[in-house]
Amino acid sequence: MIVRPRPHWLKLLFVRRGSILNRIFPQLLFTTGLAAVVVLAHGQLFHWKVTLTSAPFSLMGVALAIFLGFRNNASYDRYWEARKLWGRLLVEARTVSRQALTMTRRRTDARPFVLGVIAFAHALRNQLRGQSSAQGLDGLLPTTLLARIGQARFPCALILLWLAEWLRERRDAGELDVVLQQRMDVHVSGLSEVLGGCERIAGTPLPFTYSVILHRTVYLYCMMLPFGLVDAIGMMTPVVVLFVSYTFFALEALSDEIEEPFGLAPNDLALDAMAAGIEASLREMLGEKPLPAPVATDYILT
Amino acid sequence: MIVRPRPHWLKLLFVRRGSILNRIFPQLLFTTGLAAVVVLAHGQLFHWKVTLTSAPFSLMGVALAIFLGFRNNASYDRYWEARKLWGRLLVEARTVSRQALTMTRRRTDARPFVLGVIAFAHALRNQLRGQSSAQGLDGLLPTTLLARIGQARFPCALILLWLAEWLRERRDAGELDVVLQQRMDVHVSGLSEVLGGCERIAGTPLPFTYSVILHRTVYLYCMMLPFGLVDAIGMMTPVVVLFVSYTFFALEALSDEIEEPFGLAPNDLALDAMAAGIEASLREMLGEKPLPAPVATDYILT
Amino acid sequence: MIVRPRPHWLKLLFVRRGSILNRIFPQLLFTTGLAAVVVLAHGQLFHWKVTLTSAPFSLMGVALAIFLGFRNNASYDRYWEARKLWGRLLVEARTVSRQALTMTRRRTDARPFVLGVIAFAHALRNQLRGQSSAQGLDGLLPTTLLARIGQARFPCALILLWLAEWLRERRDAGELDVVLQQRMDVHVSGLSEVLGGCERIAGTPLPFTYSVILHRTVYLYCMMLPFGLVDAIGMMTPVVVLFVSYTFFALEALSDEIEEPFGLAPNDLALDAMAAGIEASLREMLGEKPLPAPVATDYILT
Amino acid sequence: MIVRPRPHWLKLLFVRRGSILNRIFPQLLFTTGLAAVVVLAHGQLFHWKVTLTSAPFSLMGVALAIFLGFRNNASYDRYWEARKLWGRLLVEARTVSRQALTMTRRRTDARPFVLGVIAFAHALRNQLRGQSSAQGLDGLLPTTLLARIGQARFPCALILLWLAEWLRERRDAGELDVVLQQRMDVHVSGLSEVLGGCERIAGTPLPFTYSVILHRTVYLYCMMLPFGLVDAIGMMTPVVVLFVSYTFFALEALSDEIEEPFGLAPNDLALDAMAAGIEASLREMLGEKPLPAPVATDYILT
Amino acid sequence: MIVRPRPHWLKLLFVRRGSILNRIFPQLLFTTGLAAVVVLAHGQLFHWKVTLTSAPFSLMGVALAIFLGFRNNASYDRYWEARKLWGRLLVEARTVSRQALTMTRRRTDARPFVLGVIAFAHALRNQLRGQSSAQGLDGLLPTTLLARIGQARFPCALILLWLAEWLRERRDAGELDVVLQQRMDVHVSGLSEVLGGCERIAGTPLPFTYSVILHRTVYLYCMMLPFGLVDAIGMMTPVVVLFVSYTFFALEALSDEIEEPFGLAPNDLALDAMAAGIEASLREMLGEKPLPAPVATDYILT
Repeated sequence: MIVRPRPHWLKLLFVRRGSILNRIFPQLLFTTGLAAVVVLAHGQLFHWKVTLTSAPFSLMGVALAIFLGFRNNASYDRYWEARKLWGRLLVEARTVSRQALTMTRRRTDARPFVLGVIAFAHALRNQLRGQSSAQGLDGLLPTTLLARIGQARFPCALILLWLAEWLRERRDAGELDVVLQQRMDVHVSGLSEVLGGCERIAGTPLPFTYSVILHRTVYLYCMMLPFGLVDAIGMMTPVVVLFVSYTFFALEALSDEIEEPFGLAPNDLALDAMAAGIEASLREMLGEKPLPAPVATDYILT
Repeated sequence: MIVRPRPHWLKLLFVRRGSILNRIFPQLLFTTGLAAVVVLAHGQLFHWKVTLTSAPFSLMGVALAIFLGFRNNASYDRYWEARKLWGRLLVEARTVSRQALTMTRRRTDARPFVLGVIAFAHALRNQLRGQSSAQGLDGLLPTTLLARIGQARFPCALILLWLAEWLRERRDAGELDVVLQQRMDVHVSGLSEVLGGCERIAGTPLPFTYSVILHRTVYLYCMMLPFGLVDAIGMMTPVVVLFVSYTFFALEALSDEIEEPFGLAPNDLALDAMAAGIEASLREMLGEKPLPAPVATDYILT
Repeated sequence: MIVRPRPHWLKLLFVRRGSILNRIFPQLLFTTGLAAVVVLAHGQLFHWKVTLTSAPFSLMGVALAIFLGFRNNASYDRYWEARKLWGRLLVEARTVSRQALTMTRRRTDARPFVLGVIAFAHALRNQLRGQSSAQGLDGLLPTTLLARIGQARFPCALILLWLAEWLRERRDAGELDVVLQQRMDVHVSGLSEVLGGCERIAGTPLPFTYSVILHRTVYLYCMMLPFGLVDAIGMMTPVVVLFVSYTFFALEALSDEIEEPFGLAPNDLALDAMAAGIEASLREMLGEKPLPAPVATDYILT
Repeated sequence: MIVRPRPHWLKLLFVRRGSILNRIFPQLLFTTGLAAVVVLAHGQLFHWKVTLTSAPFSLMGVALAIFLGFRNNASYDRYWEARKLWGRLLVEARTVSRQALTMTRRRTDARPFVLGVIAFAHALRNQLRGQSSAQGLDGLLPTTLLARIGQARFPCALILLWLAEWLRERRDAGELDVVLQQRMDVHVSGLSEVLGGCERIAGTPLPFTYSVILHRTVYLYCMMLPFGLVDAIGMMTPVVVLFVSYTFFALEALSDEIEEPFGLAPNDLALDAMAAGIEASLREMLGEKPLPAPVATDYILT
Repeated sequence: MIVRPRPHWLKLLFVRRGSILNRIFPQLLFTTGLAAVVVLAHGQLFHWKVTLTSAPFSLMGVALAIFLGFRNNASYDRYWEARKLWGRLLVEARTVSRQALTMTRRRTDARPFVLGVIAFAHALRNQLRGQSSAQGLDGLLPTTLLARIGQARFPCALILLWLAEWLRERRDAGELDVVLQQRMDVHVSGLSEVLGGCERIAGTPLPFTYSVILHRTVYLYCMMLPFGLVDAIGMMTPVVVLFVSYTFFALEALSDEIEEPFGLAPNDLALDAMAAGIEASLREMLGEKPLPAPVATDYILT
């Protein structure tokens, strides 16, 4: 476990890790500036007094709370499910490799199979990030398969087919009992479930209409807010508008970022580090040393 | 992964994708028009002053929040569970096809079995959309089975029966070990679970009473709202009513749309694209090329 | 899929399907009448002015929201879990019937086994509704078993025992491989899980204390409400009280109805239609025709 | 299913089942009495006017809602998970007994095994309630095992070990195929999962700090409330304080009760009735009659 | 079950178990002191009157409730999932040990295998706490393996590999049927899932941005609060600020503590006690006596 000391509570107010503040800076400037203008004009818009109080904003807050809460929970669920799938990838990869090493006959060389499992992890990362299919696969798979994968639309599924083919060959050669072949197939299917789960998250975003409705609600709310506050709190209006805008905009921007957890934004999943962790663990099981150095990341250990 | 650049925050306010706004336009016009009339009449209805303040609306907001939040969550859960079932369909289809290709003897031609699995995906889409049972199945199944399916009440279950029959024949012909037959049956049963899950969602809506109570609450709230606001905010009443109505009506309309995820509304699931994706992946495993072109869709990849 | 066109939004305000309104009519009359009396008496009770404002009701709303939201979610979870169990019943019934038809030798007559599975579905409905154990079982089970079931305390468990006994006989007769026997037993156990899940929901309601506390909170709230509103909104008090009472009473009544999903209230599960759907699907797998006509229901398809 | 007619809505206000009201009576008396004193003193404490309005209580309500809602949900989840585990215990017990009766050779006497499963249910109840290990086990297990269990720290795990030992003996005697032995082991492991799940709930309460923070928040809130209300609503202050205190205290007390569902409080699980139900169902499968009479309970059927 | 009598409700207000109050003491002092200064200065900051009312704080409360509620739920889910994983560790450890004792031939000495399972539990605790890999493993594993583990990056995975190797040796020696070997492998894989789940929770915290936004929102809210209250409630301002700060700060601090459940903070999981419980249960299954004494802890039993 990486020890993560929490910063002092005063210091934490000024921390800049994660770029959310940069991302929402223009919008914050806009609403706060608008609030300042409204204060200077005493709540008048083109010489016409906008008669608002804070009461309507309480009513609007109901819908806002439902939308923001829902969007945030749904996005985080996608993020955490994606993380669970990669956690399961590690588990299934280790399990099927352990089986290849201990369920076949002693004379069997299980190394090609284990390298194929490593290749699957890298290929999955490539597919989810839209990178070239063959990135990081050199030396892990037979060259004919590598060539076929380079042109495939679903490369990961072909690697699983090859792993199953390897099991059939071991069985035909008398190196693997049929009972153990079907047992190992359970975990090859587990890899297939990880693949399908990741494809589902990557391929189906939240219904876009949610984003549109939420966005409109949040921004119109913050733009109307100065008119509702200026009569009651005068000069403090821009401060309160800044505070409210910051929380709403930041929550919306963060939800937007983790909604697609396989991207490259600062709060997305560290797929490179996780794929490297899987590779290191399987190579250690093969008895290799020294292991490749871990990929540096803020927060992902394995 | 399809890269989905998010529009600029100002532009997002005016985007028109998804037809929710069109759908709720009459209602919005009605409540906003009503608010305008109330302002002009200074809150009087037939020369009788309606004495309302915003306080009762805070109290009503409690029930409204519970209803809207619940309905939205329950509808989204149905939508996402339906999507998970189709994701699992892809996984099970690939798994059982991989098994047919690698668990039988080398001399076995597993192609009819794999085509049958493709037929199952198309037949499930047909059943869920109330289309003709045989649509898209030509050439995928034996003609006698096709004829029987055309008249069946539960066509998908008959396809699974045929797949299991195929396995028995392979076993009786000595091409499939009984241990592997029972292993493959696990995933034929998996297809059956996908079928049953989809039938459950398609056949059992949310209790209709929820919709009725929520609908009444939302619309009466929005119709009474102008009377509660007009004394405090005068001319701004229609603006606030428009804002509040928009968020409530839009949330209700969207929940209504995704509650039945197998329909043809803009936010429903892209079953055609998903069935085509399953077909392409299985055909690639069979070594066919070129693969059929993907079905165009806004947001579904696989 | 049954196509369910949604009524026009104006018409939906006056729909009467589902009898919730009838059920809460007396209570609504009481609180609205009380509000009218309070208005006429200018908030006095026995010549003593009740000094209430709307502020305390906001505070009370916190507890009310937690209770109502919790009760509603917990009740709906019970309803939906019950529906999932019956959906799984269909899946397991089909799976185990498919296995009986394709895993035994060709000479085996699997019809008695499939009829026994149909009998299980009917017996489960009977048990959950407290009906006579043997209702709808004629001709589906051997007469000696039928007689024993008629007197049993747990009739469904005895049917499962008989199904397992049938499997042992097939195996002893050399018609069923032991590997396939244990595979079929997985789904006989699945039927047992459906049975246990339904018994759990039917036998353990929500802790009754929740209902009591919620009921008291809701009704006292609505009875005190007129005194809190009359000074501010005068003649409109009965309208607002009617509105608030309706939403709270309706939500409580609906939660109460779906909390026990196996009953006969309008929003409960259509067990008859679902059991008939299972029977029709299994009989179609046996090749019977014509199938029995579906049981009419508002919303259950399968 | 036991038919549970719901009392009339007026009668339900005065029902006394469940002792929550008794439990929180002193606290209610205290806060209501305090409110009365505050009214008489016109909001003065030691001749010093406490200047509070209801506005701060709205702000405090945010934290209160989060705490109360969380605690209630978390407690109910524990309660319902515990109930699910006992429901699963019934399912696994029936399944493994059915297997013992139909998977062994006809000459095998499976009765000792089934009695051992019954013993497991009673031993689990004993362990969870901290009762003597051997209570209710007479005649169900071999005497040497009974003696060992009486002194054991984990008696239930030893019973499972004995069940597995019985299976090995049947197999060594040629009465049980190895494929079926491993199939039955799946459900012996299921019993082990039930055991571990119950131990987890019994052994790990909610973090105690939650209780402390919630308790302080709720009680200080209710003690300060009279000062915030007295200027606005005068004589009605004790009524409102009683109402608010009742809902908050009752919710806290109920959460506290069901948080540890294996206890003996009125809303806890009826372990005796459930263990007796399991015993009756298994004895019916053995063909015994008459069955022992069901244990009386308000609400548990099986 | 440890009987946990709940303290008297008055006493519970002053309890000091759990160090949350110590941890947030400086912050509480700061905000309360600030409130006192604001009261003395009559809401002026540098001779400039800060015009705030309590209305903006209601609006800010929406975002605050969403953040606090989400963070608390997400943290507790992590805590409870971690507890479930350790509960499952106990179950899998007992199951695989029971199998080793009853599925091998009678002549087999299963003791080394069971000790290896105990070693796995200790090694997992060491890994999660960042302790030396070999702590508590003396005498539980072969010395060559111990040496290898001392230098390994993923020591737990190597122990599982050794367990699987032991199974292969038993099978090669004719002491373990291949069907039972694959059955035991299911639960060795279960141990692997526990390992992967713990690594996932330990390696991936909540997105750090959540903490930052929440922290800023909470602290700025509490610092601005005195200005919003001082005009309405005067001298009572510090009391209300103390109350509100306490609930918000305490909730944030507690969420922060249980978010990483494998640490050594007072509310974290008692890994030492749980590992010792697993060891005691397995040693009892081996027939050892006396068992090691349980590790003292406030609340963990098993």
